[in-house]
Amino acid sequence: MKKGKKIYEGKTKKVYLTEEQEYLIQEFKDEAVAAHSKKNAVKGSGAINNELSAHLFRYLESYHIPTHYVKRLGDTLMLIKRLDIIPVEVLVRNVAVGDAVKNYETEEGAELPQSVLEYYLKDEERKDPMINEDHLISYGHATQENIEKVRRTALKVNAVLKDFFMRRNLKLIDVRIEFGRLKDKLLLGDEVSLETCRFLDMTDESLKLKDRLRFNFDTPEVYEEMRQRILS
Amino acid sequence: MKKGKKIYEGKTKKVYLTEEQEYLIQEFKDEAVAAHSKKNAVKGSGAINNELSAHLFRYLESYHIPTHYVKRLGDTLMLIKRLDIIPVEVLVRNVAVGDAVKNYETEEGAELPQSVLEYYLKDEERKDPMINEDHLISYGHATQENIEKVRRTALKVNAVLKDFFMRRNLKLIDVRIEFGRLKDKLLLGDEVSLETCRFLDMTDESLKLKDRLRFNFDTPEVYEEMRQRILS
Repeated sequence: MKKGKKIYEGKTKKVYLTEEQEYLIQEFKDEAVAAHSKKNAVKGSGAINNELSAHLFRYLESYHIPTHYVKRLGDTLMLIKRLDIIPVEVLVRNVAVGDAVKNYETEEGAELPQSVLEYYLKDEERKDPMINEDHLISYGHATQENIEKVRRTALKVNAVLKDFFMRRNLKLIDVRIEFGRLKDKLLLGDEVSLETCRFLDMTDESLKLKDRLRFNFDTPEVYEEMRQRILS
Repeated sequence: MKKGKKIYEGKTKKVYLTEEQEYLIQEFKDEAVAAHSKKNAVKGSGAINNELSAHLFRYLESYHIPTHYVKRLGDTLMLIKRLDIIPVEVLVRNVAVGDAVKNYETEEGAELPQSVLEYYLKDEERKDPMINEDHLISYGHATQENIEKVRRTALKVNAVLKDFFMRRNLKLIDVRIEFGRLKDKLLLGDEVSLETCRFLDMTDESLKLKDRLRFNFDTPEVYEEMRQRILS
C-alpha cells in the first residue's frame, strides 16, 4: 500500500490516502508534542511512537477493544482503517497533575478516587475547549448511545493500559484517546504513545514527585529508554 | 426572625444566621451582577430580585420542586432553610449566546436541539472553572445518585420556568441554579431572579437578535418593567 494525497497534518502525525478507499496511512513525525505542552522535535521519536502505538493497539485488540490499526508499513508509517472521526479528545485521568491541580481542588500527585473523563473539542480556532457529554449530543457529534459506548470503552482502555504500565513500574497519570465510527462500530483511533500517555515512575518512590513525572521527553536517549521499558 | 451574624457575602446577596439553627436570612443587594458579566449597582434591584425569587420559588414548589424558600421578611430579606450547599453552579442552556457561541460550534441565537447542562465549581480563586459530573464525584462534592437527582431536577426547573416565561413572551436563554442538601433531600437554593435568568424577547421577532436579548439590566426602569411583565 502506498502513500497518496496528504489529507491531514496535525502536531504529531500526517495522514495520507491510499489506493483503497477504506484505508489510510498515518506517518508519525519527529515532532514530539506531549500532552498539554509544546517542545522541540526529537530525532527518532516518530519511529518509536509508531512502534509503541502498534504494540499497544495490538495489546488492546487482545482485550477485544477494536482499533483502527492494521499494520506497520515502515519505521514511521502505519496502515489504518479509515474512520468517521468524532472530533473530540477524551482524556482519562487517574492521578491529578498540572491543570487538574490548578483547576480543581486537589493535590499534585493525588490519586483520584475514581477515574475522571474529560472531553476536549478538537477545534484549534476555539483552542480545543473542554466540553461535556451534553455538548457532544447537542452539537451533533454523538448520540446518547455513542457517548455511553465512548465512556465505557475509554474506561476499559484506561484500565487495560494502567495495568500494562504498572507491571513496568509506570503509573498511568492520564491518557488521551480518540474515537471514530466504522459502519456501526466504535473504534479507537489516533495513537497510543509517549505523546498521549503521561506517567509517574514508581521505581523509586522516595524521590520527589517532580523527579518521578515522565512526560515531555526531550532527548533520543530518553525515548529509547522508555521504548525498551515499555516493550520489555 | 432577626438577622444574626453575617456568614457569607457574594455578588448579589448577604447571608445571616438567625435565632434558629435551621434557618438563615438572605439579603438581596442592589448589586446586579447578571450571569457572565459585571455591572454597576441599580437602585431597587435587590428588592425586585427578592420579590421575583419568592414568586418563582413558590411557583416551582407548586410543581413539587423543593426549594429553600420559607417567606419574605421585608423588601430585600428572605427567610430560607439552611442547606448543606453543593459548591457548584448548574447552568442550563436552551439557546446559544455569548460564550456558548465563542466556545462551541454554534450560531448566536440558535436554539439547542436539547438543553445542555454545564457545571461551574464555585471557587473564586480558581475563577469558577467549568467541571463535569466526573469531577463532582471524584472530588467528593456529590455521589452518582446526587448527580442524577441534580440533573433531573435542573431539567425540570428549566422546563417549568421556560414555559412560565414563554407565556410572557420571554424565551429563557439559560438559567443558573444551585442546590443543597437538607437531611436526605435535595433542595433548590440561591435565587431565581433577573440575575440568574437570561431572556430573548419574543414580542417583536422582526427586531435583530441583539435588540431582543434581555439581561444585564442597568436602570431601575427596566427592572420595574421586567418585574411587572413577570408578575403579570
